[in-house]
Amino acid sequence: MSSTLVERLRAGLPDGAVLTDPDVTAAYANDMASFCDSEPPAVVALPRTVEEVQHIMRTATELRVPVVPQGARSGLSGAANTSAGSIALSLVKMDRILEINPVDRIAVVEPGVINADLSKAVLAEGLFYPPDPSSWEQCTIGGNIGTASGGLCCVKYGVTAEYVLGLEVVLADGRLMSTGRRTAKGVAGYDLTRLFVGSEGSLGVVVKAVLGLRPAPPPQLVLAAEFDSVRAACEAVVAIMGAGAPDGSRAGAPALLELMDRTTLRAVNSFARMGLPESTDALLLAAFDSSDPAADLAVVGALCEAAGATQVVPAEDQAESELLLQARRLSLTALEAVKGTTMIDDVCVPRSRLADLLEGVRRIADKHDLTIGVCAHAGDGNTHPTVCFDASDAEESRRARESFDEIMALGLDLGGTITGEHGVGVLKKEWLARELGPVGLEMQRAVKHAFDPLNILNPGKLF
Amino acid sequence: MSSTLVERLRAGLPDGAVLTDPDVTAAYANDMASFCDSEPPAVVALPRTVEEVQHIMRTATELRVPVVPQGARSGLSGAANTSAGSIALSLVKMDRILEINPVDRIAVVEPGVINADLSKAVLAEGLFYPPDPSSWEQCTIGGNIGTASGGLCCVKYGVTAEYVLGLEVVLADGRLMSTGRRTAKGVAGYDLTRLFVGSEGSLGVVVKAVLGLRPAPPPQLVLAAEFDSVRAACEAVVAIMGAGAPDGSRAGAPALLELMDRTTLRAVNSFARMGLPESTDALLLAAFDSSDPAADLAVVGALCEAAGATQVVPAEDQAESELLLQARRLSLTALEAVKGTTMIDDVCVPRSRLADLLEGVRRIADKHDLTIGVCAHAGDGNTHPTVCFDASDAEESRRARESFDEIMALGLDLGGTITGEHGVGVLKKEWLARELGPVGLEMQRAVKHAFDPLNILNPGKLF
Repeated sequence: MSSTLVERLRAGLPDGAVLTDPDVTAAYANDMASFCDSEPPAVVALPRTVEEVQHIMRTATELRVPVVPQGARSGLSGAANTSAGSIALSLVKMDRILEINPVDRIAVVEPGVINADLSKAVLAEGLFYPPDPSSWEQCTIGGNIGTASGGLCCVKYGVTAEYVLGLEVVLADGRLMSTGRRTAKGVAGYDLTRLFVGSEGSLGVVVKAVLGLRPAPPPQLVLAAEFDSVRAACEAVVAIMGAGAPDGSRAGAPALLELMDRTTLRAVNSFARMGLPESTDALLLAAFDSSDPAADLAVVGALCEAAGATQVVPAEDQAESELLLQARRLSLTALEAVKGTTMIDDVCVPRSRLADLLEGVRRIADKHDLTIGVCAHAGDGNTHPTVCFDASDAEESRRARESFDEIMALGLDLGGTITGEHGVGVLKKEWLARELGPVGLEMQRAVKHAFDPLNILNPGKLF
Repeated sequence: MSSTLVERLRAGLPDGAVLTDPDVTAAYANDMASFCDSEPPAVVALPRTVEEVQHIMRTATELRVPVVPQGARSGLSGAANTSAGSIALSLVKMDRILEINPVDRIAVVEPGVINADLSKAVLAEGLFYPPDPSSWEQCTIGGNIGTASGGLCCVKYGVTAEYVLGLEVVLADGRLMSTGRRTAKGVAGYDLTRLFVGSEGSLGVVVKAVLGLRPAPPPQLVLAAEFDSVRAACEAVVAIMGAGAPDGSRAGAPALLELMDRTTLRAVNSFARMGLPESTDALLLAAFDSSDPAADLAVVGALCEAAGATQVVPAEDQAESELLLQARRLSLTALEAVKGTTMIDDVCVPRSRLADLLEGVRRIADKHDLTIGVCAHAGDGNTHPTVCFDASDAEESRRARESFDEIMALGLDLGGTITGEHGVGVLKKEWLARELGPVGLEMQRAVKHAFDPLNILNPGKLF
């Protein structure tokens, strides 16, 4: 069976595009998620053209072989993990930027284009592709679309989904479908473009995307505010995202509004000696890329003080701003260094319940005697409670997994969702069922069946 | 059959919620579209609760009776038109605003809430619900969701779809499904919320919606710029939406950027004696609701002059601004008065092709010896070429229909879509097939079948 598969794939693909060396296939078996099973695929396929993807899908359909579409495999939910006998369909070789159109403010790209490469290319034309997941220097646009990824800038600029205008998709049986548009608006039929965003490769294989762009904003200026309780920091978040300053003035939307708790601050300090304030309970970082960021930061500074900030430090310049953001970007790596392994959660709650969530996470950490650091896209209520544990300690690993689940349960109780931007994959399958309920889950399956009746596209993910 | 239907419906609905008087049912037979067939429904149902909607759908499923969900029936595609024997399911009595939450910036509403009523209610809390279709004083939120409606403010604030966070939907068989979230972000499973937006009542009946809100912006200030060619006006549009002013300064996003051509200007003048400049070929209206709208208008004024504007007139104050917007809002009514009947098209093209579209529409008008006025959400490339004709003149009606089709063909040739914001309904069914192609159309049908296997929800619409 496997040798038939390889022969058939090779019949329609160039030399070097079908890999079967076990050392190689093993390297394509998983993404960055913890606690997600995987087995090496039977074969890794590396197509360079739409026709080659069509050949792969036709072959998979004929032989009833599961296909796992993959980008950079930097995802955090196991959505790119493979099973034995499957085809790992890596889109990383389809990495051309096909068009950048400044007048229509669109880019047309292949799925393997790296997020940072696109960002740099459009910036050279005075344009801006906002979605900025933490992995932006390695993750691909196709992966961003598959996982509906977010990032720091979402609080002002929204998520990946809002920038995907149109797609070309190879369906399970190898047919090519176009969805969406190149125009600013369009409502011709059901929004299948949006349906594919976040579908984790389970409905089709994205082979081309039309992306919306914006004019490049001015550089960011950042402010740091220290609080002696997470609740006070969250009150500042509510005020900043709310109606305005006590004097009636109003800042525009912050370009980012991030929270780091004391556990995270200490982890970053011991990892990188950044000199962050260890005695503070929560640090807020707010940035503006407006026409007058210093004025906007002044409004935000006043709001932080009104909410009880013990110190408010606006960055003097770009360099200082960059240093503060650097600390935020190091958070997950630093937390990983605490115990060697982390489970990164992604619970998003209504902004009004953010303090309740953060206090609840602390209770869960105490109960299980675990280190759980939280950094959050606070303006969106999207938190990443990160459980630090020693994977070689079975008992601690069990507690880590338990606490992870308790955090999701708490998020749902607070009116939130189990995933704000990382997706479901295999990590949160049971929890998706809990969030959606039986009717919602049944309709999700019905949509899956409409696109993939043989269940060969990334089976076993999502539900 | 019809008497069984009425009895069964009445068994689960209060007095007065099931109407069968032929004068009444005839009044629910159609929306505002021209050239779309309709027949009075067998019965009009006016539920007030979710349970009553469930009863209606269960009955319809058992008896295999088509159901046409309706709001204010102000749509322009025939999507709300009924057929003989069907149930007109009017949601207008479900008109409660259930929650306005300023901290989380959401509103929770029933589908029959009128757009303007919601806008006023949230404004009282310092908040803003942007979507503003021209019919905003009569259309319902449910209808806005069903048709994915747009409006003047889309160029800055986006379309209805971007404000729908979560839904409760009664499915074809009467089951209740929740989709989406109350949070700012969320990626738990396929985005079924977005799938329902623009589905024209063909996938389920929306009975509750969680809507995103924004802080209320400052009042708008408007500028009018006159051009002696539509091409020059379109060049100004490209410049305004592009990188910035010749001196390197940059305005923010205009809150609206509208174009009226000379046919429209003359129609408005003869309808309302507004004193608009009749010798000009195209008028642009740009508005800003920024912190310094006068400064932004100065940048835009300079861009218009650089593109060849013959006159640039910034409004002195709110009252003058309101007068200019009033002229824009009167456009369709004024064009209707020209010949008694209009067909309003809704072609959206990439911004770079806007001038080509407008010039092409003039050629089509000349060829068919017709009056076709164009007003456009120019910043989005979304145009409403409006064919004026005498419906009692069969020959002129035929030419009107032909020109309407030629405009859509031109839009597709220019890389555009047949509908930017009005939807497909029955008016553009054939054209949807042409835009999507056979594979796209087949997958649209597959999605429909997944939600409505008996094809009782608004059958015969879209495709």
